[in-house]
Amino acid sequence: MKEILGEEETRASPDDLHMHLGDLLESKDAADLTFQVGGEMFPAHGCVLAARSSVFKAKLLGAMGESSSSAIKIYDMEPGVFKALLHFIYTEKVSPVIDVAIASHLLVAADRYNIGRLKQICEEKLCSHIDSNMVATSLDIAEQHGFPRLKEACLRFLASPPNLEAMMTSNGYEHLKSSCPSVLKEIIAQILPAEWNAAKDIIMSI
Amino acid sequence: MKEILGEEETRASPDDLHMHLGDLLESKDAADLTFQVGGEMFPAHGCVLAARSSVFKAKLLGAMGESSSSAIKIYDMEPGVFKALLHFIYTEKVSPVIDVAIASHLLVAADRYNIGRLKQICEEKLCSHIDSNMVATSLDIAEQHGFPRLKEACLRFLASPPNLEAMMTSNGYEHLKSSCPSVLKEIIAQILPAEWNAAKDIIMSI
Repeated sequence: MKEILGEEETRASPDDLHMHLGDLLESKDAADLTFQVGGEMFPAHGCVLAARSSVFKAKLLGAMGESSSSAIKIYDMEPGVFKALLHFIYTEKVSPVIDVAIASHLLVAADRYNIGRLKQICEEKLCSHIDSNMVATSLDIAEQHGFPRLKEACLRFLASPPNLEAMMTSNGYEHLKSSCPSVLKEIIAQILPAEWNAAKDIIMSI
Repeated sequence: MKEILGEEETRASPDDLHMHLGDLLESKDAADLTFQVGGEMFPAHGCVLAARSSVFKAKLLGAMGESSSSAIKIYDMEPGVFKALLHFIYTEKVSPVIDVAIASHLLVAADRYNIGRLKQICEEKLCSHIDSNMVATSLDIAEQHGFPRLKEACLRFLASPPNLEAMMTSNGYEHLKSSCPSVLKEIIAQILPAEWNAAKDIIMSI
């Protein structure tokens, strides 16, 4: 047998799998299920979702084959976030224009459906765009959903008096205080001078 | 709105769309149709085939939704060729070990289902691996299915007396003679010296 094809260089046109699946999503051709998210409907393809997300796979495989015309309702998610999630699932691309709030929600959605690479991308981008307006919300998400890199980046940002003060006047602060009081203790503990280790222990034990 | 995501560099793990679809094909999860090719069965996903091939799209979209347990029979194709075709459809990859005969058949299959990039890859590889054993078959395929680059490469190879003689003793020669007599005339015409243009005209008009 003569081997003539393989991983060699090719002058063929670029890989078009992503584009074809993006077109499939847009066209809604052969969609076998519909999601309803906050009043908007999103037709989709069960096998693509199952291939890309272990969570969708577990949810959908049992229900596939059963003919049902009713939409699957998704709660606690904005339609725009679900749209971005679907777009990534089909194309591996994140929409080029997306604000910080959407990115935070997309991180949570990626975590909920276990889309590993989208989680990495969102976490990485949030880490590199921390400011006093969003740091409380990011820290909240990092703590509640378990994103250690994002948490560390937020704590690093807050290890500066003006950043900490600005965060305390931001919209997300009250929510952070009620949902994750322990992380506020960590903030205090980390800014105590090194010789006050005992004080750190006290704070963390309160 | 602050734009923070986009086409920037990322340190996230590599794109895994191809791998996920490859796994979907392997697992047969949520397959909604089955092809029967020469006694072998191949479960597959209609929406993926429709997204990737306009021919499958036209054939399958009408039939989708109709519950049918019978397999779709594919004629005139070896199971191994259909398997390689499906593998490319899901992953954009050609199996690393593939012989010349399979590559020729894969080119024909890619043409039949209009998988443009696979056609380009197969044609390119066949062009760069022409020898006297396969040139008659390649020329036959190039002529019958319309691959001008491959035809040109074969004619160039045959513009040498020893190559032409070796081709005439190869397995594919008799078939080429009966299926594409006109291309044999082209071979003769191209090796006539330039001053014999009139003779070329005679040959091509016979």
